[in-house]
Amino acid sequence: MRVIPIEGLPEIRAGDDVAALIADAADFEKGDVLVVSHKVISKAEGRVVRGEKLELVLREARRIVRRRGELVIAETRHGFVCAAAGVDASNAPEPGTLVLLPLDPDDSAARLSERLGVAVIVSDSFGRPWRRGTTDVAIGVAGLAPLIDLRGGRDAMGYELRSTEIAVADEIAGAAELVKGKTAGVPAAIVRGLSLAGEGTARDLVMPTERDLFR
Amino acid sequence: MRVIPIEGLPEIRAGDDVAALIADAADFEKGDVLVVSHKVISKAEGRVVRGEKLELVLREARRIVRRRGELVIAETRHGFVCAAAGVDASNAPEPGTLVLLPLDPDDSAARLSERLGVAVIVSDSFGRPWRRGTTDVAIGVAGLAPLIDLRGGRDAMGYELRSTEIAVADEIAGAAELVKGKTAGVPAAIVRGLSLAGEGTARDLVMPTERDLFR
Repeated sequence: MRVIPIEGLPEIRAGDDVAALIADAADFEKGDVLVVSHKVISKAEGRVVRGEKLELVLREARRIVRRRGELVIAETRHGFVCAAAGVDASNAPEPGTLVLLPLDPDDSAARLSERLGVAVIVSDSFGRPWRRGTTDVAIGVAGLAPLIDLRGGRDAMGYELRSTEIAVADEIAGAAELVKGKTAGVPAAIVRGLSLAGEGTARDLVMPTERDLFR
Repeated sequence: MRVIPIEGLPEIRAGDDVAALIADAADFEKGDVLVVSHKVISKAEGRVVRGEKLELVLREARRIVRRRGELVIAETRHGFVCAAAGVDASNAPEPGTLVLLPLDPDDSAARLSERLGVAVIVSDSFGRPWRRGTTDVAIGVAGLAPLIDLRGGRDAMGYELRSTEIAVADEIAGAAELVKGKTAGVPAAIVRGLSLAGEGTARDLVMPTERDLFR
């Protein structure tokens, strides 16, 4: 597997044709997965706002999961649980502005995937309970199955793997983050050499309420 | 960045010299990170037992975080929160046996790192609250800083990134999992082409109690 940063993308503005800009900057091969930081999508889709952060967080949130001072962990309209419901000042286009999550990152991924002819993951950096640091995860998916279900499969000794379902879309998003970096102005990467099949969306990654021990 | 599976490792038994077996199977370059599934380490270190699973889970756990029927989310002696305190039947060496986590996976990583001259991550598959599927994360680290601290750094627009700390060791473990697979008998991989510096252990990834909103 190779992970290749896509360099040379300009700063994205509302209305930009992200697919065309990425097509200019990248050479895709069959089977590639394109991973794009959601900020690129959000900016192109005009999801940049001015306002008081906490107010915006409460507006974007469907449910507050935890709160301690200014730190709010919230569930977004998409069902993702993350800090500030995805409202973020870093890499915002201007002082005083905040970037929101795309309204429908799966749909954004699907449109990019159709234009570029490769699978697409829209990523964001999420914190995790009990563990320090963020890892990038998939908040939009098109052209691949985000979960690989090994349930009913067998390990090397022939025993059934009864509860193994791997969130490959999240692992791919994290792998891309390792080459994109945070400050280098490289918001996209190609992951090449995986044999992935299937279809699905990032909503498939949301734990259904009835199975959720941490709701 | 390239992620290269290490093929041809034999089934590991108690007392095996894992460093020698990996050295035979892999060609390392300067700056490589070796990612090894903890099962390899656990088996070599004799952490394979017979017994009733729930009893073993309770023995391995320092604290039960959630329980629903047979599903137990527990904190291990190392501070990791995961299903069954890491006690697992899949890829066990014989029917009726269970594999436990290494007693000190950071120490196991350090010994491998010293023998092989590369950074080492010992990985395990963890579930996540609110998200379906597992991702591989680092439970042992040697020869690299598991967290990259961008706090105080600046984004491409010059604004301070105030709360960004990236769990690169977890992202590397996840990237390696994409090529290792679960059933192919490939329990190790090389991650090549990252410029990583620093030192640290997987215990650095455990959220300190006073900052933990989900304890």
